[in-house]
This record gives sequence, C-alpha cells and structure tokens, in this order.
Amino acid sequence: MSGVDEPRAATPDSAPVVIGVDGGGTGSRAVVLDAGGRELGREVGSAAIVIPGSETASMEAIRDLVRRVLRAAGVPEGRPARALVAGLAGVGREADRLRIETMLSTSMASLGLARSVLVRNDAEVALHDVFGTGPGILLVGGTGSIALARLPSGRSLRTGGWGALAGDEGSGWSLGLGAARAVLRSLDGRGPPTTLTDHVTRAFGTREPAELVDRLRTAAKGQVAALAPQVEAAARAGDEVAAGLADRAAAALADHVAPLIRAWHADLGGETASQLEVALLGGLVARGGPLRSRLLPRLEAMGAVPTPQCPDPARGAARLALPI
Amino acid sequence: MSGVDEPRAATPDSAPVVIGVDGGGTGSRAVVLDAGGRELGREVGSAAIVIPGSETASMEAIRDLVRRVLRAAGVPEGRPARALVAGLAGVGREADRLRIETMLSTSMASLGLARSVLVRNDAEVALHDVFGTGPGILLVGGTGSIALARLPSGRSLRTGGWGALAGDEGSGWSLGLGAARAVLRSLDGRGPPTTLTDHVTRAFGTREPAELVDRLRTAAKGQVAALAPQVEAAARAGDEVAAGLADRAAAALADHVAPLIRAWHADLGGETASQLEVALLGGLVARGGPLRSRLLPRLEAMGAVPTPQCPDPARGAARLALPI
Repeated sequence: MSGVDEPRAATPDSAPVVIGVDGGGTGSRAVVLDAGGRELGREVGSAAIVIPGSETASMEAIRDLVRRVLRAAGVPEGRPARALVAGLAGVGREADRLRIETMLSTSMASLGLARSVLVRNDAEVALHDVFGTGPGILLVGGTGSIALARLPSGRSLRTGGWGALAGDEGSGWSLGLGAARAVLRSLDGRGPPTTLTDHVTRAFGTREPAELVDRLRTAAKGQVAALAPQVEAAARAGDEVAAGLADRAAAALADHVAPLIRAWHADLGGETASQLEVALLGGLVARGGPLRSRLLPRLEAMGAVPTPQCPDPARGAARLALPI
Repeated sequence: MSGVDEPRAATPDSAPVVIGVDGGGTGSRAVVLDAGGRELGREVGSAAIVIPGSETASMEAIRDLVRRVLRAAGVPEGRPARALVAGLAGVGREADRLRIETMLSTSMASLGLARSVLVRNDAEVALHDVFGTGPGILLVGGTGSIALARLPSGRSLRTGGWGALAGDEGSGWSLGLGAARAVLRSLDGRGPPTTLTDHVTRAFGTREPAELVDRLRTAAKGQVAALAPQVEAAARAGDEVAAGLADRAAAALADHVAPLIRAWHADLGGETASQLEVALLGGLVARGGPLRSRLLPRLEAMGAVPTPQCPDPARGAARLALPI
C-alpha cells in the first residue's frame, strides 16, 4: 500500500468507490464498484502490459482508462476513488511490482484519480475474482500462458508465465508462431504441404518467406496469437500439421495445471476423490475458445473440471480493493 | 560488382591480392590470397553479422579486420587489394545484399583497402570453398542453421536460415534455448528433474527463474548456443531431457538436408546409387562438434556422407574474388 491514503490538506475527499484494472497485452479493462460491491461502471482501453523500458506506456493507458471508467460510473471529476488495484501482465518479480506500484501510486495521486494503489499480477486478480481469498487454481491460455494456485494451506504456487522467449508454452503466441514456422518449413521443402500457408499468407500479407520472417519480427504478439482460431479450424478440417500444433498446445496448457493438482493433493495429505475446479481465462480456453475442447478431456483425466464462473480479472482487482 | 574498379586519377595502384571475409555472428575471419591462389595472410576479428539497423557495426568490424589481414599479408599500407568478397551472416534477401554491397564498397574504396567489392551470404562462400563452381550441398549447424545446394543442373536451393524467431531449427541457439526452457519447466514442476539445471545455472549465474529469464533476454545468441556441448555431455551421461533435446536438434538439422537430396535426385532424373557428399560447417557439426555423431547416421540413411574437406568460408570468399 502506498503512503498517499493519509488525509492531506488541499486533497479533495475521496469518492466511496473502488477501481479494478486488468491490464493485458492486447487491451485493458476497468471496473468501478461501490462500497457494497455493486458495479457502477465498466470500460475497456488499450494494452497496459508492463514492458521493461516502456513502463510509461502502461501508466498512460491506465490513466486514460481510469479517467473514463470514473466518468462512466458517475464519479464527479476531481474526486479520487478510495482505492485502486491494478492486475498487470508483465509484472512478475516483487522488485518490479514495487517499482510499478510506486509509479502508478504517484501518478494516480497527482492526477486526483485514486488514493490507495496496489499493483498485482493479472493472473492473481483473476484467481481472486473466482475464488476470493479461498483456495483455487487458475489457468491462463491467452497471448501468453501461466497457471496459478492458492492451495488449501494458503500456500501459493505458479507454473509458466516466463514470457515469449523462455516460456509461454501452449499460448496463442506460441501456437501462432508454430503455425508460421510450419509454413516456412513447408515452403522450403522441409515440411509437408499445409492449409496453414493460406491462413498465414492472409494474416501477414505475403507468402514470400523472407518477407514473412520480417513481418513476424515486427508483429505484435497479439497479431501472431490471432492465428490460433485458424489453426484450430484447419485442424478440424483435417490438416494434420495444424492438428499436431493444436494438440501440442493443449498438452502444454494441461502441463501447467498438472503440478498444481499434484501439490493440491499433497497439501491435503494424499489423493482425494473430490473433483477440483480450475478457472480458465484467456482467448484460447475461455468458453468458445479454440483450444477449450482439446483441453477439457486432459483436465478431466487429472480429475479437474472448469469452474462454471468465467474469471473477470478487472472485477477481481476491484474486489481486492474493497477492504483496503 | 561495384563501380569503383575503374582506374581513377589519384588512386594508388592496387596490390595483386584478393581478400575473402567470412563475417559471422560470434566472430569473423579474413584471408588474403595472391593471384595464384596462395594464402599470404589470415586474421580473425569480431562479429560482422549484418543486423538490420546495426549495419555500421558490421562495416566497422570488416574494416578493422581487412586492415589487419592486409598488414599480415605484407601488403604496403595505402595499396588496396584488387578485389574483396565478403560472405556475411544475416544477408538473405537480394535487396539487403545490394544495399550492404554498396555500403561496403564505398567504405573499402574511400579507405583505400579494396577496389572491387562483392557481398554474398556466408553459406554461399562456404559452398564455394568446398565445391567451387560445381554442384554440392552444404549444411550449417552453428549458432544458426541453414542448408544450401547447387544442383547438377546449376539451380540453387536453400532450406532454413530464417533466423532465431522463425527458424534456426536444430541450431546451437535453438538447442541452448531448449535447454533453458527445460530447466524452467523443471524448476516450476512441469518437467522432470534434469542435470541441465546445473549447467544452465553456471552459464547464466542464477537459478532463480525470473532472473534466468531476464538474462536469456539480454544474452547474445552465441552465449545461449555455447550451452550446446553441455547438453550433449549431459545426454551422454544419461540425462533423458538432454538426450531428447540433442536428438531433436540432430533430426532438425537432417531435415534441412533431406529436401536438397530429393531435389538432387530429381534433377538427375531419378534416384541414383551414388553417395552424395555434404559439407558440414559450424560448431555443432564440424569435426568434434557435439551433434556430429548424432547427425552422421541420419545423413547416411539418406545416402549422404560428409566431405573429407572442412569448409573454410573465408578462403571460399577469397577464391570467389580471384576471377573478379
């Protein structure tokens, strides 16, 4: 918690509302709740993922989004929210978290947008939305991938979330890049023909390998991840290259959950008969997501089912702000 | 060929020597030959790989290397070599090649280091070293990966060489990154324990996952590729994770050669009984390289054996300069 929540002279009274921000890699969402937890407003904005060296972009996206969501909630201009919790993609280490929290806290206070400011990881606020302060497991399969658990003992565990270079196995980015690589292998004769060539050609506007490589290098991760539904569609239409990619991605996502389930059972002193609920978040695995139907049987084999409730990270962040 | 080879007033007579440059990602090599093809001098220098936006670094590395190799060859200062051919990593497309050729040509002429300047891809000059103007196949397994063929009909073919993001399957960079990813999966519980953890910890000075990810992000590709011998050593000592990585890398390298051999046979009008010779270049597959013994049986299964001669790309570049 930052030090801005002490009443100071010339500081206007705060509004009796809290803000939750979910800052992701392709867009951001914000929610305003009243003291009773009722939703007063909701807005979407641009990406607020924290990228080392480009933290200012994240701060600006949040500032703009917070201004708009306060307006949508009917909070008079100049009255800061009582508290704000931001769950931000790209915030992994405690040192980074503290640094970003100080930046955001200073920015929100100086602009009169929010008093107390906390920064969390985006997966943490999603976990909180579904399970509150209780135990639970969350799998994120979006542009990136990560899984998080709060065990019955209260201990927290995490798998994945190591980013595009060293991790993100099973993510949309990884699946889309795998499709582009398969197309390059097909074009230079190393791989079999695949209908993915047409999809990738359309998505990047070229089927000239060197140009495709250039465009991949400069493409946003979200643009590459946007190939995922086409990979799954190609797989369903019988393309074996696409089916292999989609299967491996679903397996990699399930691999994120397996150690958390093992730890859960160990935490309870051994295997239990009860089914575990796993919250699924992100474009690949949310309801209607391209990999969901490949993932569910793998989860079931581990004794896990998806939660009926879809995680809403912005609401989870706002709920974390309520008791502040 | 650039336009600087016409005699101009106030231009000193050129020395009757040619220079070959092999500009790679971790270092560069240069050779000076006399008109009869005898080697007069040889030097090594810093990386001269062409990286978009950092072409100046490549030009500076070549300038420094050329100065030193001319001195080593006993060429008096101020007398430019008759011709220079540079085979540079990172030069893939014709537009890039022409641009770099103009830059290098201008630089060499203005400094009085070389008259006629040609730029080629580093794999092309290696192919020329072993096979001259005749047909042949070259596989590069170094920090990156690529294979090149000049078919009996004279047609040129290429597989791979698409760079770290979209290609480089089976390369040292890819193998080293695979090892680091396996360590991260092991540390967060997704993968089995592996002795690679100790190797990666030593190489990057940390076993804290988030720090390891940071160091991978800022590491030079060569530093990641330098893990390759340790992966092979771990595999030989019985580590199954390492053995899987090394096997998949060797298979990916062999995959580069397979379509070239198929095209070779098709070029001759069908399968022939004769064994094909493939030149092997790069730290992974050169004599004593960590993946060589996994690669050779795979090549043999395709009817291919390594050339007795090791490719010397700098010499190949210099030989290309002789007839200019």
